[in-house]
Amino acid sequence: MTQDNAANAAHDLWRELEADRLHEECGVFGIFGHPDAAALTALGLHALQHRGQEAAGIVTYDGGRFHAEKRLGLVGDHFSDSRVIERLPGKAAIGHNRYSTTGETILRNVQPLFAELESGGFAVGHNGNLTNAQVLRRQLIQEGAICQSTTDTEVILHLVARSRRNRFVDRFVDAVRQIEGAYALVALSTKKLIGARDPLGIRPLVLGELDGHYILCSETVALDIMGAKYIRDIENGEVVIISEDGIESLKPFPQQQMRPCIFEFIYFARPDSVVQGKSVYEVRKNMGIELARESGVEADVIVPVPDSGVPAAIGFSQESGIPFELGIIRNHYVGRTFIQPTQRIRELGVRLKHSANRAQVEGKRIVLIDDSLVRGTTSVKIVRMMRDAGAKEVHFRLASPPITHSDYYGIDTPEREKLLAAQMDLEGMRQYIGADSLAFLSVDGTYRAMGYDSRNASQPQFTDHCFTGDYPTPLADLDAEGKNVKKRSLLAEAG
Amino acid sequence: MTQDNAANAAHDLWRELEADRLHEECGVFGIFGHPDAAALTALGLHALQHRGQEAAGIVTYDGGRFHAEKRLGLVGDHFSDSRVIERLPGKAAIGHNRYSTTGETILRNVQPLFAELESGGFAVGHNGNLTNAQVLRRQLIQEGAICQSTTDTEVILHLVARSRRNRFVDRFVDAVRQIEGAYALVALSTKKLIGARDPLGIRPLVLGELDGHYILCSETVALDIMGAKYIRDIENGEVVIISEDGIESLKPFPQQQMRPCIFEFIYFARPDSVVQGKSVYEVRKNMGIELARESGVEADVIVPVPDSGVPAAIGFSQESGIPFELGIIRNHYVGRTFIQPTQRIRELGVRLKHSANRAQVEGKRIVLIDDSLVRGTTSVKIVRMMRDAGAKEVHFRLASPPITHSDYYGIDTPEREKLLAAQMDLEGMRQYIGADSLAFLSVDGTYRAMGYDSRNASQPQFTDHCFTGDYPTPLADLDAEGKNVKKRSLLAEAG
Amino acid sequence: MTQDNAANAAHDLWRELEADRLHEECGVFGIFGHPDAAALTALGLHALQHRGQEAAGIVTYDGGRFHAEKRLGLVGDHFSDSRVIERLPGKAAIGHNRYSTTGETILRNVQPLFAELESGGFAVGHNGNLTNAQVLRRQLIQEGAICQSTTDTEVILHLVARSRRNRFVDRFVDAVRQIEGAYALVALSTKKLIGARDPLGIRPLVLGELDGHYILCSETVALDIMGAKYIRDIENGEVVIISEDGIESLKPFPQQQMRPCIFEFIYFARPDSVVQGKSVYEVRKNMGIELARESGVEADVIVPVPDSGVPAAIGFSQESGIPFELGIIRNHYVGRTFIQPTQRIRELGVRLKHSANRAQVEGKRIVLIDDSLVRGTTSVKIVRMMRDAGAKEVHFRLASPPITHSDYYGIDTPEREKLLAAQMDLEGMRQYIGADSLAFLSVDGTYRAMGYDSRNASQPQFTDHCFTGDYPTPLADLDAEGKNVKKRSLLAEAG
Amino acid sequence: MTQDNAANAAHDLWRELEADRLHEECGVFGIFGHPDAAALTALGLHALQHRGQEAAGIVTYDGGRFHAEKRLGLVGDHFSDSRVIERLPGKAAIGHNRYSTTGETILRNVQPLFAELESGGFAVGHNGNLTNAQVLRRQLIQEGAICQSTTDTEVILHLVARSRRNRFVDRFVDAVRQIEGAYALVALSTKKLIGARDPLGIRPLVLGELDGHYILCSETVALDIMGAKYIRDIENGEVVIISEDGIESLKPFPQQQMRPCIFEFIYFARPDSVVQGKSVYEVRKNMGIELARESGVEADVIVPVPDSGVPAAIGFSQESGIPFELGIIRNHYVGRTFIQPTQRIRELGVRLKHSANRAQVEGKRIVLIDDSLVRGTTSVKIVRMMRDAGAKEVHFRLASPPITHSDYYGIDTPEREKLLAAQMDLEGMRQYIGADSLAFLSVDGTYRAMGYDSRNASQPQFTDHCFTGDYPTPLADLDAEGKNVKKRSLLAEAG
Repeated sequence: MTQDNAANAAHDLWRELEADRLHEECGVFGIFGHPDAAALTALGLHALQHRGQEAAGIVTYDGGRFHAEKRLGLVGDHFSDSRVIERLPGKAAIGHNRYSTTGETILRNVQPLFAELESGGFAVGHNGNLTNAQVLRRQLIQEGAICQSTTDTEVILHLVARSRRNRFVDRFVDAVRQIEGAYALVALSTKKLIGARDPLGIRPLVLGELDGHYILCSETVALDIMGAKYIRDIENGEVVIISEDGIESLKPFPQQQMRPCIFEFIYFARPDSVVQGKSVYEVRKNMGIELARESGVEADVIVPVPDSGVPAAIGFSQESGIPFELGIIRNHYVGRTFIQPTQRIRELGVRLKHSANRAQVEGKRIVLIDDSLVRGTTSVKIVRMMRDAGAKEVHFRLASPPITHSDYYGIDTPEREKLLAAQMDLEGMRQYIGADSLAFLSVDGTYRAMGYDSRNASQPQFTDHCFTGDYPTPLADLDAEGKNVKKRSLLAEAG
Repeated sequence: MTQDNAANAAHDLWRELEADRLHEECGVFGIFGHPDAAALTALGLHALQHRGQEAAGIVTYDGGRFHAEKRLGLVGDHFSDSRVIERLPGKAAIGHNRYSTTGETILRNVQPLFAELESGGFAVGHNGNLTNAQVLRRQLIQEGAICQSTTDTEVILHLVARSRRNRFVDRFVDAVRQIEGAYALVALSTKKLIGARDPLGIRPLVLGELDGHYILCSETVALDIMGAKYIRDIENGEVVIISEDGIESLKPFPQQQMRPCIFEFIYFARPDSVVQGKSVYEVRKNMGIELARESGVEADVIVPVPDSGVPAAIGFSQESGIPFELGIIRNHYVGRTFIQPTQRIRELGVRLKHSANRAQVEGKRIVLIDDSLVRGTTSVKIVRMMRDAGAKEVHFRLASPPITHSDYYGIDTPEREKLLAAQMDLEGMRQYIGADSLAFLSVDGTYRAMGYDSRNASQPQFTDHCFTGDYPTPLADLDAEGKNVKKRSLLAEAG
Repeated sequence: MTQDNAANAAHDLWRELEADRLHEECGVFGIFGHPDAAALTALGLHALQHRGQEAAGIVTYDGGRFHAEKRLGLVGDHFSDSRVIERLPGKAAIGHNRYSTTGETILRNVQPLFAELESGGFAVGHNGNLTNAQVLRRQLIQEGAICQSTTDTEVILHLVARSRRNRFVDRFVDAVRQIEGAYALVALSTKKLIGARDPLGIRPLVLGELDGHYILCSETVALDIMGAKYIRDIENGEVVIISEDGIESLKPFPQQQMRPCIFEFIYFARPDSVVQGKSVYEVRKNMGIELARESGVEADVIVPVPDSGVPAAIGFSQESGIPFELGIIRNHYVGRTFIQPTQRIRELGVRLKHSANRAQVEGKRIVLIDDSLVRGTTSVKIVRMMRDAGAKEVHFRLASPPITHSDYYGIDTPEREKLLAAQMDLEGMRQYIGADSLAFLSVDGTYRAMGYDSRNASQPQFTDHCFTGDYPTPLADLDAEGKNVKKRSLLAEAG
Repeated sequence: MTQDNAANAAHDLWRELEADRLHEECGVFGIFGHPDAAALTALGLHALQHRGQEAAGIVTYDGGRFHAEKRLGLVGDHFSDSRVIERLPGKAAIGHNRYSTTGETILRNVQPLFAELESGGFAVGHNGNLTNAQVLRRQLIQEGAICQSTTDTEVILHLVARSRRNRFVDRFVDAVRQIEGAYALVALSTKKLIGARDPLGIRPLVLGELDGHYILCSETVALDIMGAKYIRDIENGEVVIISEDGIESLKPFPQQQMRPCIFEFIYFARPDSVVQGKSVYEVRKNMGIELARESGVEADVIVPVPDSGVPAAIGFSQESGIPFELGIIRNHYVGRTFIQPTQRIRELGVRLKHSANRAQVEGKRIVLIDDSLVRGTTSVKIVRMMRDAGAKEVHFRLASPPITHSDYYGIDTPEREKLLAAQMDLEGMRQYIGADSLAFLSVDGTYRAMGYDSRNASQPQFTDHCFTGDYPTPLADLDAEGKNVKKRSLLAEAG
C-alpha cells in the first residue's frame, strides 16, 4: 500500500492546491454547416480549455450517422490529431470540455452525451449544474429509465426521449421546462443545432459566425481563435434553433431580468473574453482600481499572485501609483501529474508552482493582489514565501468580496464550512494568513467595477450568492436531501 | 491513406483466416458469497477464454456498491493484475468474455452491463443471441428508452427496468419471458446471483460449488481450474436464484425437450469440458471413429488440422489403424496483431499460422482431418501446403456434416451465400479445395458419435440448423427485416 | 509494498513455471540484396519466435545509412506494422530474437548491436554464449573501451573495432579468433552479410535462397515460411561472406569434427525444422520409440505433456501399441502476463496452463511422456493433477537422459544444485515426483534415435555435457571466477 | 501518406513557432551525501525545466551500484512517481534536462551518460556544446572506440576511459583539457561528485548546500525550490570535487577573464534566478529602461509579448510613464502536442498560443516589447494580430541587439542566413515585420543594463558573438568541415 499511499498523499497535495481555487464545470461549442466542423470545434474547445481540463468530447453528424470521440485529457492531447478529426465527418458538430468535481472521471461521463430517438439520434453538451437533477433522476428511474452516466446532463436526454411531442425541438423545450438551475446547452439533432440558456442566464453562451455558418460557444475567445465574428450573447431563457433555414429564437419561459454569474468576470472567463458586452480584463482591472480606492496602503511594490491576480494588480498599481512587479514567478511546467514522492518534498508544496523573485521582495513593503480567497491554504503559503524572501511588510488585498456561501450552479466550491470567510472574521483571517493587513473588495465596489453604482438589492444584476447568500433559484435537490448529497452512482467503474 | 490501407489489408487477411472459422459470442461466470469473488471470476474467465477473446468484464457487489472493470483484450492481460482485482471488492461477482462480430468493439458494449433500479442496481452477462432483440429495441426506443450499447443484451436490462413487478427476481422473469432466441445469462443484484438458460437450452450453463459457495459458468473447465465441484447443468428454461438462503429453481416456461447447440460439441467447448454429461473430447474422437467407418480410405498417415482437428484425427487413426502424425505444425505466436506489411507477405497467408512438417508428408498418402468446413478458404491453402510439401495424395475428411445454413443463436457464421456447402455439391467442393477425395460425417453419424442411434427427425435432440435448416425458434428480427440487418447504432464511436 | 509483493510473487510463480524448462538465448536471420529485406526478416524472426520471446530487433542498410528498430515483446507485436517496416529501408537486413536470462531486459541489450568504424558501420546478431566474454570484457575496459550493454555479444563489436586490420572481413575474423564458446553470428557491414558458426558448430545456422538472394537463419522453418529454398547448413568453424559478388567461404580455424548441441533436437528446434539433415520431429518420435523399447510398461493410455512431449508420445504409442490420447489440455492463452492476484490462486499454479482431460484419465493406467526433466517442480504438479483426475497408475517417461550438468553455451539452465537429476538418484526422483514408475531414455538410446549405434566416447558426435559433463570447450570465465558469476553491469537501468 | 503529411505539416508549424525562439541545450543538477538524493534531483530538474523539455535523466550511486532512469518528456511526467524514485537508491545523484536540436530524441542520447572503468563506473551530465567534438570523435573511432550516442558529451566519457591516469579525478581533468567550447559538467563516480565549468565560464553552474550536503546546479532556482542555500557560482575554468571529505577546487587551465553567455540574462535563465550575482529579472527590467531611454516613442500602452517580454515591458513602462497592459493573452495549454489537422487551421498559426486582448488594443498606439528577434516569423504574426484587433500604431521594441551570428556553444540558433538581422537592415526588418517603427537595444545599452558603462572591446565582459560576431574560442569542428555539419550517426534508430 506504500505506493498507493504515496500517490494518494501526492494527489492530496495537488487537491489541496486545487481545492483552494474555484473550478467551473465545462465549456461548450457548436457549429452548423461548416465543412471543417470537427476541426473548428476542436479549435474552439482549445480556446475554452481553461473552463475544463479533465476531458473533452466532440459529436458530429454527417447526414447519415453521428460520430463521437471522447477522451480524458486536454483537447490538444487528442483532438489535434488528424486521424481523430477524420473519424468525425460531417458539417455539424458540438463539443464539450469537462471539469469533473468528483473522482469519477470516466469516459461514460464525458460529454456530449448521445441518445437515439425513434426519429433519429441527438447529442447534448452542458455547462452548468441542475438543481433538481437528483429529484428528476429518481423519478425517471422509478419509471424504468436506465441511467448510464452519473451526470445531471443525462437527465435532459431522458426527458427529451420520454417527451410525448413529435418534433425534436418541441421535445427539447419540453425537457428544459422541467429542469432547474444553471445551464448553457448545445444540442445536435439530425437537422438542427440548438442552443439554450437558463431563465436567468447564469452560465454564458454566445452566438458567432464564420464563413456564413453559425457558431455557439461559451466565450468570445472561441470565436477569436478562428477569426469568427461575434454576433450577440444568447439571452437568458432563450432557445436558438440553427438549421439550413437559418436561425430561429424561442422564449419558452416567462420573461425575467438576466442575472449572469458574477464569477465569470472575477475568475472564470479568459481575460481577453467579452462577456455580456464587458471586457473581462477591464472589469478585473477596475476591481483593482476600486480595491486601491477602498483599501489603499503605503507600500513599495504591488505583487500579483500569478496569473489570476495580474489584471487587478495592474489596476491597483495604476490607481495607487505604486510600481507593479513580478514578485512571484510561476512555473508553467507544473501539472496534475506532479506528484511528490517523499514527505519532505510534499512539504515544499506551493514552491513547485510559485517561487519568490527575491530581488523584488527583499526589504520591501509589498501589496499582494489575488482575485479571490477560498480556503486560504495557498494564501498562507504565499505570504510565508514572501516573508522568507525578505518582505518587510505583506499586505494582502482581494479583488472580490469574502466568499461565504457554496455554489450549486456549476462552480465547484468547497462545502460552506471549509470556506475561510464563512468561518472567521476579517481579523481572524488576517491572522490565519499571516498578513500585516488584509482587505477585500466590497460588494458595491465589485458592482462599481462592473459599471453599476451599486448592487440593486431588490433585483440584483448578477448571480452573487457566494458573497451574499442570495440564491436565485429553488434548490430542489438540496431541500430533498436536507444536505447536498454527492452525486454518486451505485456503480463504481474505472476508465 | 497508405498506412490505413495496409492496416486494412492486413486486418482483412486476419479476417480472412478468422472468417473461415466459426466463432461463439461469449462465456459467462458468476460466484456468490466467496471472499475471493473477483479473483476467482477472473480465473474462471481465463479458463473460458476460448469463448471470446476481444474483451472481458467483471462486476462485483460489496454490500453497498457495485464495482465494474471492463477491458478490451484477454483476461490475463488485465485481470491478473492485483490492482484491478482490488478495485473489485465484494463477495459476489459475475464476469463475461466477449467475442465481437462487428467492428464496434468499444467499451460501452463490453459486458456485464449494469443498470440502476429504484430498489438498487443489477448487472447482466449474456452468452447467446436474441432473435427478437431488434423488434424489442424499436419498441423500447419508441417508449423513450435510451440505449447506450449496441448489444442485444441491453434490451434485457430495459425490460427489467420497465417491469411493473417489485421484486428483482420477478422483474427478471418478466424480462426473460419477452425475449426469444438463445441465452445463458448470469445476473447480479444486491441480494442475489441469478442464472438462466433459454427454453431449449441452446447455450450451456453449469452449476458448481467451491468452499460451499455456488458458481455458475459456461463450461466445466472453469470449475476445474479452481478445483471447484461440478454439481449439474442448469436445465433448459430454468432460472436459478442463489442467495444467502441457498439456491432456488424456477421454471417460468412451458416444459420442452432440451435441444442444446450441437456445435458446442463439434467446435466451441474445450475438449476437457463435460457438456450435458458428455466428454467433449470423447465425442470428438467418436466423430473421427464414425468418419473412419463411413468414409475410410487407403492412406499412409492421418494428419490433423491443428488444433481443432486433433481429437477426431486420433479417433480416425485408432479406428482405421493408419498412424496419426503431426504433419502440420501450428505457430502458437500468431495473434490478431500479426498484420502483414507488404503485399508479398500477405500472399503467404496461412503459413504464418501453420507450416508443413515435410518429413511426415513427403511422398505419402495423407488423410487430413478437420472439425468442420465453413468457407473453405483456409482448406484450399492447407491442401496446397500439403502438396507443396510433397504429399502424394490428399484425402480431406470433415468430422461434421456440411454447413448449409447460417446461425442466429450466438455463433458468428458468414451469410449463407458464403458457406461453401451452400454453394456447391460435394464434387464441386472437392475440386475447389483441390483434394483427391472429400467426405463429411453424416448427420446420423454425428448423432451416433453423441450416443444416439440417429437424429430424431420429429423431435431432434440437438439444435442443428446449420446442417439441417431446422431452426428451433421463431426468428422475429429476421422476419421483420426480410434479411438479417446488422445491429448498427446511429452513433459511431471509437474506443 | 503490497502490490509490488503481489507482482513479485506472481512473477515468481511464472518464473517457477518457466524455471522448470530449458531456454535458449536467441534466433538469428539475415538476408542480402532483397527489396523486401526488412519485411522478410520480420517474417523469418516470426518463424523463429520459439527461440526467444522477450525482444526482437532488425537492422538494415540502405546503401547510405543503417536503420535499427528494437522492441521488447513478440515479433508480431511490433514488426508486423508497416510503419515500422517502412523505417527499415534497404536491401540488406539482419534480425535477432532475444531470450533474456537476467532481469535486465532493456532496450540497450536488444540485438543486433551496432558500431561505427572509421570505414563505416556494422551490426551483429548472436545466438549462443561466449565462455570467455568476461575475461575479454575486463581486458577491453582496462584498455579504455566503454561497454554500453551487458551482453557478451558487445565484446565482439569491440574486438572488431580494435582490430588493426583494414578490411571489415579481416577485422571480423580477427575478432572471432579471440572468442570461445558457442556462436552462430550474422553480421552486416556496408557491403557484406556475414555468417559464422563456432568451431564445433554448437549453435545452428543454415543457408537458404529466395528469388536469387541468400539468406542465413537459425532453422529451416524460417526458410519454409517464405517459400525460400534450403541450400545447406553452415559448417562448424565456417565464415561465409555474402556480397554482390556472390558467396565466399572461409575456414579460419583448425579443422575439427562437428559437435552440434543435442538439445536442439530434444527441445529447442521446431519439430518441422530439419537440423543437420535430420527431421526434428522424426528424431523426437524415434526417442519415444527407443524409450518404449528401453522402458516399456503395461498401461491403458499414453499421455503427452503438451506440447513438447507430443512427438515422443506418438512414437512411444506406435512402438508400444498403447493408444495415444490428449489426457492433458493446454490453455493457449496463458502468457507471461498472467500474474496471480491472490495467494489462493497462486497455489493453483500449473492449472492456469494445463488441465486434466478427466475422461481420458479417470480409472486408467497412464504413461506420461515429457521431453526432459529439469527441476521437476512442474512434473510434481502434473502427476498430482493426473491423480486428482482419477488416474489409477502414473508412469513417467522422459524422452532424454537425466540432466546433471549446467550449460554455458546459450541454454539457460539452472545452477547445478537445482537440477533434480544432479541431486537425487532415480528412486529419489520417482518419489519426489510421485510417479508409480520413472524412466529416462539412455544416452545411447538418445544417440540411436539420432541414427548412431551409440555415443562415440572418444569423439562424441554431439555437444551433450548436460547429460555427460563432457564440456567441449574451455570455460575461461568460469575458471577465472571460480564460479559462474552472473553477468551484471555496474549500472542498473530500467527500460 | 496523407496522414504522415498532415503530421509533418503540423510538426512543421510547431517547428516554425519554435524556430523563431532560441533554445538552450540542457540543465544539470548534482547532490552528494543526501538520503533523498534522487527525489531532490528530480525536484531540481523540475525547477530547471525551462532549460530542456524533451527528456530527463537521473543517475544515482548507492555505494555498490549505479542506477539510471531516463525518460522522454517532462520531469514531472515521470520523475514525480515514487516508484521511479525508489528505483534510484543512494545518497549521491546527478540529473540532466535535455533540449534536443536534432530529430534524434532517442533514449540512448538522453543524459547523464554512463561508462564503466576498471576502477568502477561514472556518469556525466553536460550543459553546453563542444566545438571540437567531431574532431575528437573521429580520432576516437580511428582508435577503435565504439560510440553509442550521437552526443558530443560521449566524447568526454571516452577521453576519461582512455586516460592513462589512475585516479578518476586525474582522468577527468585529462579529459576536460582536451575539449573545447562551452560546458557546465556534473559527474558522479563511486566516491565523488564533480562539477566543472569551461575556461570562459560560458555556461552557468552554481554551488549550493542543503542540510549540510553540497549541490551543483545550473541556476539558483533549483536551490530555491528546495530551500537550499546558495554558496557561490563555480568559477570559469574551475573543477570542484565533492566527496565525504568535503569540497576541493582545482584550476587546471591558465587563468582567464570570465565571459559568461549574455543570453542567459536576456532569455534563458528564469527571471527569479540570480546569475553571476545579478537578478535576472532586474537585468531584464533594466534592458527595458535602457530601451525606453534609447528608443522612446509617443504611445498609449506598453504591451509585452508574453511571457518573455514582460520584465522589459515593465521597465519600459516605468521609465516612459506609459501604462503597462496585457494586450496579448497567452494560452497556457498549448504544447508540442498541438498539431493542426487541416490547412485552414494551420494558417491560424500563432493564435493557438497568443490572442489579442482587444479592449486594450483597439484604437490605441501600442509599444510591443519582446526580448529578442530571431527569424521574425512570429513577430510578423503578432504585429498583424495587433492590427486586426484595431491597434492604431504598432511600435516594435526589442530589449536586446540584433542577432547577426549563429551560436556554437549550446544555444540552438538557426543558420546565419535565417537570422532576420543577418539578412536585412533596420528599415528592411521594419517593413518585413509590418511595424510603424522598430528599434533594438544597443550593445552598449545591453551592457549598461548589466551594470557596465559599455562593452570592453579589448576584453569583453560577456560571450556576445550572436550580436558582435566575436567568438571567444576556436571552432575546430566548423573549421574542419568548412561548414557546420550536423552531428549524424551512421545509424538511424527510433526510440
